[in-house]
Amino acid sequence: MSRLLQDAVAEFAKLPGVGRRTALRLAMHLLKMDEGAVEQMTRSIYDFRHKIRHCELCNNLSDTERCPICSNPERDHSTVCVVEQVGDLMSIENTHQYRGVYHVLGGVISPMQGIGPSELKIDMLVEKVASGSVREVILAISTSVEGETTLYYIMNRLRQYPMVRVTTIARGIGFGDELEYVDELTITHALMNRREVVRVNE
Amino acid sequence: MSRLLQDAVAEFAKLPGVGRRTALRLAMHLLKMDEGAVEQMTRSIYDFRHKIRHCELCNNLSDTERCPICSNPERDHSTVCVVEQVGDLMSIENTHQYRGVYHVLGGVISPMQGIGPSELKIDMLVEKVASGSVREVILAISTSVEGETTLYYIMNRLRQYPMVRVTTIARGIGFGDELEYVDELTITHALMNRREVVRVNE
Repeated sequence: MSRLLQDAVAEFAKLPGVGRRTALRLAMHLLKMDEGAVEQMTRSIYDFRHKIRHCELCNNLSDTERCPICSNPERDHSTVCVVEQVGDLMSIENTHQYRGVYHVLGGVISPMQGIGPSELKIDMLVEKVASGSVREVILAISTSVEGETTLYYIMNRLRQYPMVRVTTIARGIGFGDELEYVDELTITHALMNRREVVRVNE
Repeated sequence: MSRLLQDAVAEFAKLPGVGRRTALRLAMHLLKMDEGAVEQMTRSIYDFRHKIRHCELCNNLSDTERCPICSNPERDHSTVCVVEQVGDLMSIENTHQYRGVYHVLGGVISPMQGIGPSELKIDMLVEKVASGSVREVILAISTSVEGETTLYYIMNRLRQYPMVRVTTIARGIGFGDELEYVDELTITHALMNRREVVRVNE
């Protein structure tokens, strides 16, 4: 087999979720693409890895020292939404409903994987709160065991700033979810946090 | 969102079977890789697209003018296995049972997709046969309508060389296939081409 092909397949197969069969299919697809298109692809991938930075204020991925969200004077810089990773930030941004800023932790506390609080950007968050510019911290962290651990750790660290409101995003039944398939904990939360129905007809 | 990230995601999303969500996951994975590993990945992909050639004898992908199979004096150059694409060749090579050489058509005749015989390496095959060096042509082409069309077209072109044996690979029930789920055409073929069981005890 061609060494060039072998190398390309081996490199594709290093990507998550890509087995040898898929890697071969991807390599074959390259032959259907223009040489220029493949050059652009490899340059974009290379540039992303070598030039991307983390925003000095919120740890979001950024092309510059400060990300576009932190640089935006129209965002509410006193409301900070704490997320695990950049993908979560993007999901929230896609709703176009949130006008505050973010703080990207870079993961959750996981002793099993050797990730302690110092591996995450928690000190950076506490310093931001200590500076006095923050009114509310929204913890948008996943409900996994690691997520809950991280949540309580952060709440504990922020206890010394009682003027700052600390909230978590609502847990409940998602739109389109079928109750039959929702786990007990979520249903329990959703029942406990039930809300009055607004009766339009009255 | 970061332009560098956006570009990398857009490029990954151009690959077949990769949606925006997967593309984002792949981009995020790059950040966990060493810069050197990403450089090697992009270089391998670039080199494959820009340096790969087609073997001048069989149209197989090759790093050099002639592929390792055609260059190998220990292969039987009088037996030519005709396949649609390089992936098929690799599947056959993986069995380590075939000692002949190959001829890669580059597809099958498909009027729907505007692929006629002249788009495939059929003339090249006929010339090879005309040169007198071939004793057997094995047509290992898929059983799709397009595949069958291609098969009959090639058989027709080779009719003028009656000294050359033209065969097709056996159709039948695959090992591990359950009869219940095999299509009727395959079962019909398998019944018609039934073979005597070798009775070891006698």
